[in-house]
Amino acid sequence: MHFVKIRNFATMSTNRPIILVVNDDGIAAPGIRVLANLMKQLGDVVVVAPDSPQSAMGHAITISKPLRLEKVDVYDDIEMYQCSGTPVDCVKLAVNKVLHRKPDLCVSGINHGSNSSINVIYSGTMSAAMEGAIENIPSVGFSLCDYAHQADFEPVKKQVLEIASLVLQNGLPQGTLLNVNFPKTPTIKGIKICRQALAKWKEEFDERLDPSQRTYYWLTGVFDLFDHGQDTDEWALANGYTSVVPVQFDFTAHHVINILNTWNFDAQKG
Amino acid sequence: MHFVKIRNFATMSTNRPIILVVNDDGIAAPGIRVLANLMKQLGDVVVVAPDSPQSAMGHAITISKPLRLEKVDVYDDIEMYQCSGTPVDCVKLAVNKVLHRKPDLCVSGINHGSNSSINVIYSGTMSAAMEGAIENIPSVGFSLCDYAHQADFEPVKKQVLEIASLVLQNGLPQGTLLNVNFPKTPTIKGIKICRQALAKWKEEFDERLDPSQRTYYWLTGVFDLFDHGQDTDEWALANGYTSVVPVQFDFTAHHVINILNTWNFDAQKG
Repeated sequence: MHFVKIRNFATMSTNRPIILVVNDDGIAAPGIRVLANLMKQLGDVVVVAPDSPQSAMGHAITISKPLRLEKVDVYDDIEMYQCSGTPVDCVKLAVNKVLHRKPDLCVSGINHGSNSSINVIYSGTMSAAMEGAIENIPSVGFSLCDYAHQADFEPVKKQVLEIASLVLQNGLPQGTLLNVNFPKTPTIKGIKICRQALAKWKEEFDERLDPSQRTYYWLTGVFDLFDHGQDTDEWALANGYTSVVPVQFDFTAHHVINILNTWNFDAQKG
Repeated sequence: MHFVKIRNFATMSTNRPIILVVNDDGIAAPGIRVLANLMKQLGDVVVVAPDSPQSAMGHAITISKPLRLEKVDVYDDIEMYQCSGTPVDCVKLAVNKVLHRKPDLCVSGINHGSNSSINVIYSGTMSAAMEGAIENIPSVGFSLCDYAHQADFEPVKKQVLEIASLVLQNGLPQGTLLNVNFPKTPTIKGIKICRQALAKWKEEFDERLDPSQRTYYWLTGVFDLFDHGQDTDEWALANGYTSVVPVQFDFTAHHVINILNTWNFDAQKG
């Protein structure tokens, strides 16, 4: 591991696309290695990943403590950096301190575990991709519905390449990104374009006593799916398909604006 | 401070609404005290807040370390708890371990600083309110565009009460919550229902050397507004109005589904 002063590294000098690879499971996770190696077929790859696991960090950013960014040599032939912050911090640092120009594609993952349905909200993988989209970079989050460290990524490789290639070719509408989830199966049936299924986690806090007899809790829960539409990501995954959900970072519930305008606010509404 | 075993506290026995008050600035912030005291006029109040500042935590949840939840007596006459986790953890613990029934209203804030426009994505205040909405509780995040610890909350009190009362009366459409931002002015002109303005933060990492001559970075930046629509929250705030944006946690970019369906995926699309 090198400790170097990093400032505007001129990463590549070719005309190939520059592809930024990030994740939330950390730089040592097998999923990001698979993704980085696949992306070498499509362009020049730069990896910027958290130096420790950052699952469930959502869109957190680090503002109350300083960040470290270090060039590392985890793989032999890919330029890579580790960051002490969150997945979103990684994207911000990559764009501002590592890459000499805006990348052509930002891919996040491959996450060990599902980011379908409501999981998109808690996911560091998807928040990193969303930050890429906010930076106006075509961005995709990839997740495999298998939490195991030794998950088998072989069945998803062809589709990862296919989806990344299409996004490089076509771009994505401004303000949007893709949430791609792969079912845990050796034979994926195909790809379905979906909407996010409505669901929530039913928390079950595991309550324990520490050696001083004080209570502490582990957050756990069960996934509660109450939306069985065949156009949802959950339906696609349960039926052996890869789900592709277009995601946006305009959170406005536009359909509710007219309803609120009928409310009787006493204050002058201008 | 009491260290107690907490399990399904029977918080109240009246027929008044139960109002859950959360924030991200932590239990000692003036803004949550103002909000909790205002809510006493509308119902029975329970505060569950982080034990330390948790700004910019986004929708992070705590899954890799245990959580603490402790009953505290920071204010004399309000039932309150502090939690070692994130703002979203606070809501999950409140619903599952503190309250004996689902609250009638969840209010988050009053945040010291703006959560308008793209800030909604990074905000712990808004993520706590969003978690309330995921739990199917009518939920509102309140923020004052003044980062000072000693911000003057006096000019916003009337509107906080008014908006909370209307949400208690009318409820909110399922899957939605409100993002309310107050301008920093002694005389607010009124309330405007808005959409989220398009903007981003232009990062400016402040690069420094530690005593060992190794580089570290502070994340900072300037707000880059490129959407001057008069129907946006930024326009309302800049012109002396309170902005009310309805927010949703279905992140699907529904308008992009048809576009993606025209892409030529080689794999069978089923």
